[in-house]
Amino acid sequence: MKLYSYWRSSTSYRVRAALNLKGVSYETVPVDLVAGEQLSGDYAALNPARGVPVLVLDDGTALTQSMAILDYIEATWPDPALLPAGPVARAQVMAAAHVIATDIHPVNNTRVIRRLSESFGAAEEQQAAWMCHWMAQGFAAVEEMVSGDTAFAFAEAPGLADLCITAQVYNARRRGLDMDPFPNLARIEKNCLAVPAIKAAHPDNQPKAKGAVWAA
Amino acid sequence: MKLYSYWRSSTSYRVRAALNLKGVSYETVPVDLVAGEQLSGDYAALNPARGVPVLVLDDGTALTQSMAILDYIEATWPDPALLPAGPVARAQVMAAAHVIATDIHPVNNTRVIRRLSESFGAAEEQQAAWMCHWMAQGFAAVEEMVSGDTAFAFAEAPGLADLCITAQVYNARRRGLDMDPFPNLARIEKNCLAVPAIKAAHPDNQPKAKGAVWAA
Repeated sequence: MKLYSYWRSSTSYRVRAALNLKGVSYETVPVDLVAGEQLSGDYAALNPARGVPVLVLDDGTALTQSMAILDYIEATWPDPALLPAGPVARAQVMAAAHVIATDIHPVNNTRVIRRLSESFGAAEEQQAAWMCHWMAQGFAAVEEMVSGDTAFAFAEAPGLADLCITAQVYNARRRGLDMDPFPNLARIEKNCLAVPAIKAAHPDNQPKAKGAVWAA
Repeated sequence: MKLYSYWRSSTSYRVRAALNLKGVSYETVPVDLVAGEQLSGDYAALNPARGVPVLVLDDGTALTQSMAILDYIEATWPDPALLPAGPVARAQVMAAAHVIATDIHPVNNTRVIRRLSESFGAAEEQQAAWMCHWMAQGFAAVEEMVSGDTAFAFAEAPGLADLCITAQVYNARRRGLDMDPFPNLARIEKNCLAVPAIKAAHPDNQPKAKGAVWAA
């Protein structure tokens, strides 16, 4: 399998961490979002939505959208489970993951920040303030949704919410967000990064694209 | 069960349509997003992320985030299925749904449009242009991802992608987006609205909040 991804993309980070936790091997194909490689015709043929990550299976099937890819990974390699078995518990873990995946990440995506600059002349510090606003608001919700009594968000082992949280906290630290109001999330990130499979998925451990300046 | 929702919210529309298709009865509790009811302390106790919809189960458990709620609905009332059984086919349907659920809807959410106005002085026509930009971009991707050969996005019966598409197309028409470049999506909406269970979930068939002016 090939994972088309960008080293700093938090959606790529989530998927790398899941594959690593399941012990699934894959080849990384870096896509330089800053250079606009995702806008090329070849890439658009792989993913009409022109984003990362894309997981290309051995038969050539291209799976897109990180949350859909994570669903495929969970269904195909169920062990260790990233979601609990009961529908209610499962929906609660998914809800925390989706605050990150819908309320925070998309609003701070590279293309959205670029559009803010193009349409409204948002300067660099206004871009950072925009990103931190949505992270602080979403994190406040997730901080309440997760457990304060377990090592990870909902259990003693990392699950789907933990992977989404850890990848987003990387962005938050990069943008200078004060993490003091979010002790649960800080603990979850710390415990996740103590897991070698997740640590190996960290942006610093990926092949880097040159001159990267945008979060993705 | 109670569904806290807003008549024009596309995420509420998705969930209503799924419940209706499965023949599950529920009570609607309108939350007036325009009046800011979702910001009240009582509501935040139900949903720390302060959004709609929230599905409150008969035992009082509150499920949040529409895509997580839809997962719960699919697991609890599997018939008729909104997702195919095979992991690859399932991920493909989910990917199309997630272009709507992550690339389009969150960036056009009420709170984001309000922030554009507050932070950058975005006038009403700039807000509409912002919304149409993301809808046109995301729809172009989904238009390529869905089948041109079936009544619905991936099959002869409506599924998860169809519900997300139909709810988003409602917003698109409201904002004056030209749907001519998206014949598949227009066909899907038309066929969905011919299904009484989905038609009953349409915003026009909900208890309305007064003075609603924002998409949600």
